[in-house]
Amino acid sequence: MPVNLVAPDPASLYPVPGITLGIGSAGIKKAGRKDVLVMRLADEAHVAGVFTKNRFCAAPVQICREHLAATTPRALVVNTGNANAGTGLEGRERALKVCAALADALGTQPENILPFSTGVILEPLPYEKILSAIPAAIENLAPANWAQAAEAIMTTDVVAKASSMQVAVAGHTITITGIAKGAGMIHPNMATMLGYVACDAKVAQPLLQQLVQHAADRSFNCITIDGDTSTNDSFMLIATGQTGVEISDADSADYLVLRDAITRLSQTLAQAIVRDGEGATKFMTVQVEGGRDETECKAVGYAIGRSPLVKTAFFASDPNLGRILAAIGYAGIDDLDVDKLDLYLDDVLVATHGSRNPAYREEDGQRVMNKAEILIRVLLNRGQVTSTVWTCDFSYDYVKINADYRS
Amino acid sequence: MPVNLVAPDPASLYPVPGITLGIGSAGIKKAGRKDVLVMRLADEAHVAGVFTKNRFCAAPVQICREHLAATTPRALVVNTGNANAGTGLEGRERALKVCAALADALGTQPENILPFSTGVILEPLPYEKILSAIPAAIENLAPANWAQAAEAIMTTDVVAKASSMQVAVAGHTITITGIAKGAGMIHPNMATMLGYVACDAKVAQPLLQQLVQHAADRSFNCITIDGDTSTNDSFMLIATGQTGVEISDADSADYLVLRDAITRLSQTLAQAIVRDGEGATKFMTVQVEGGRDETECKAVGYAIGRSPLVKTAFFASDPNLGRILAAIGYAGIDDLDVDKLDLYLDDVLVATHGSRNPAYREEDGQRVMNKAEILIRVLLNRGQVTSTVWTCDFSYDYVKINADYRS
Repeated sequence: MPVNLVAPDPASLYPVPGITLGIGSAGIKKAGRKDVLVMRLADEAHVAGVFTKNRFCAAPVQICREHLAATTPRALVVNTGNANAGTGLEGRERALKVCAALADALGTQPENILPFSTGVILEPLPYEKILSAIPAAIENLAPANWAQAAEAIMTTDVVAKASSMQVAVAGHTITITGIAKGAGMIHPNMATMLGYVACDAKVAQPLLQQLVQHAADRSFNCITIDGDTSTNDSFMLIATGQTGVEISDADSADYLVLRDAITRLSQTLAQAIVRDGEGATKFMTVQVEGGRDETECKAVGYAIGRSPLVKTAFFASDPNLGRILAAIGYAGIDDLDVDKLDLYLDDVLVATHGSRNPAYREEDGQRVMNKAEILIRVLLNRGQVTSTVWTCDFSYDYVKINADYRS
Repeated sequence: MPVNLVAPDPASLYPVPGITLGIGSAGIKKAGRKDVLVMRLADEAHVAGVFTKNRFCAAPVQICREHLAATTPRALVVNTGNANAGTGLEGRERALKVCAALADALGTQPENILPFSTGVILEPLPYEKILSAIPAAIENLAPANWAQAAEAIMTTDVVAKASSMQVAVAGHTITITGIAKGAGMIHPNMATMLGYVACDAKVAQPLLQQLVQHAADRSFNCITIDGDTSTNDSFMLIATGQTGVEISDADSADYLVLRDAITRLSQTLAQAIVRDGEGATKFMTVQVEGGRDETECKAVGYAIGRSPLVKTAFFASDPNLGRILAAIGYAGIDDLDVDKLDLYLDDVLVATHGSRNPAYREEDGQRVMNKAEILIRVLLNRGQVTSTVWTCDFSYDYVKINADYRS
């Protein structure tokens, strides 16, 4: 069961002027399943994105990168049920056929379409099914379809993920709404996830690219469920330019307000992915403080966050906290002086100067372990940098979901 | 259930002249449990070892390193049930008390004792219990106790692990016998394991150190169960010098015969750890060929071998083989040309030139997946180096064992 996460109230999701969303049923994995999403953008919109660093990146990711570099996108199309990865040249051709069909229907060029796929790897994309779903998706394009869009991109997700907010920038109200999917194959760069965040400010490239990287580094690149990264991860930021607000200076207060709002919303979506992590019963925040740099803080955070031994202990609510120390020890900081290190579980000082706090009592650890949301704080005491990773526990249901995924 | 692994027949384990083994019951975790092992060495014996690279290495590991550097060990003492890790100065003092008691009983110095511990981290070592078990262990010291010794060092192991062989070197028969433990917290450098291999040849330091490193790199450093490395891993090689054979030249044929025999026996023990991996139902050999160097081959092997998604798919006997490609893609080879890559499952060509082999049929993959032992072959086709990793699948029982371990 997702940890403190419920499906969004559709009424809470503000439409973003300049974007309409349409949903279709291609029946890729199941007949009747809504598994295709089309997002149509206003002519003034700009798009920026970050993609998986997996060398086996999927055909649609390759095409997205090329189309983003060459043109200004006018529409996005997403299918679930098939990743179109490990499919070679034929996979590229099939993705391009989807782009061509959508471009044709919308009166634009294939290069103006960004395609996305998520699902099983190494199986041919059933592109005819997707083509057959596009007319209905275009038919129901509407600004208020964010909740349905969040549902259409789900795979093993239990709960749809969407968030929305408004902020005041330069006397105008800017609307920001986003959706995301992903529940397994989650690790930074990127999580196995798709994320789409849109706002109605006007932000041109390359500032929009800078903004999406900033937000990704503090959200989707801070989560881990199983340490696996995907062939298809993509996080797209759309600025539709429909308000009068134009932001072009990275040092302006207006930019910082917008950037921080988009980052917060992206964090909410990224955390929702962890809360809905496959089989998750607990949500853990791993905060590593006192590091020399971001790299070493993140290395420690991820060593803890992806350790099966740590994650199964949290599933069992067992304060077997030595497993956290072992994970810190193999995080790869060769000159780490463990005798300086402190470990807290919420407010409980478990270990100090690298060994068990004499005042630590098992019942204090147990009290924290019984909670559904837990803060693990590691104080390296060797520098000034703090970094955070979000993760979940590792349960029977993780195995069940991933052993049964295709059946 | 362990994969094709049964407890050793005690009659198959040759005593090694120059070593006696004694077992005691300290009742560290359970009353009556045999959880203490003493190994006494002949005066002519030499010892070499490799230890965990975990920065949180346990107190006994620190002491072993110091004692090995300073003296020639006369005895080893192992306890299970408590790792004496994350225990600070007090942990060192307690381990030294165990050394002192054993040294006193054997008429030697504390520096001549190598202590080892395995079990729960971050809890004080109940050294009085160990001291109380030492007299009985000394009482029953005998050359033929290898099978009992293998049992005494088990933690979550289901099956005791031991192996024995004899080889002809320079007209003499050399006996090699070894034991190991470890079933979880297993990843190279080192697996969460203890391994002790002894032979009756005479090999002085530093050649013995070179030999143990060679064997470890091809055995215990090639296995992964959960990607966690331990605070306590130790692999010790003992040469008792009781035969007339003295080996001092690393280029001699005699050395190579001995080295290869010890390496093979170490591989058997390391594979036994994977076969008995926590919850394991399948044993997988990941062979990465055509790499530019050992590092990149191992990186690919471990990315596959520790991926929870790959491991749960094997548990389910589900040929969801795209997950292997995804793992290869995030193994960290930045210039990997995936279009050159081939993937075999046993004899079945699954993917070629980076995408699905057109002739691949799901039933062929299924046929292999149904087996208990599976070879995953990745051909990088960019160099001449081959490297192998052994791993197991990831089942409900892994979660159960690790969620319940302390209870």
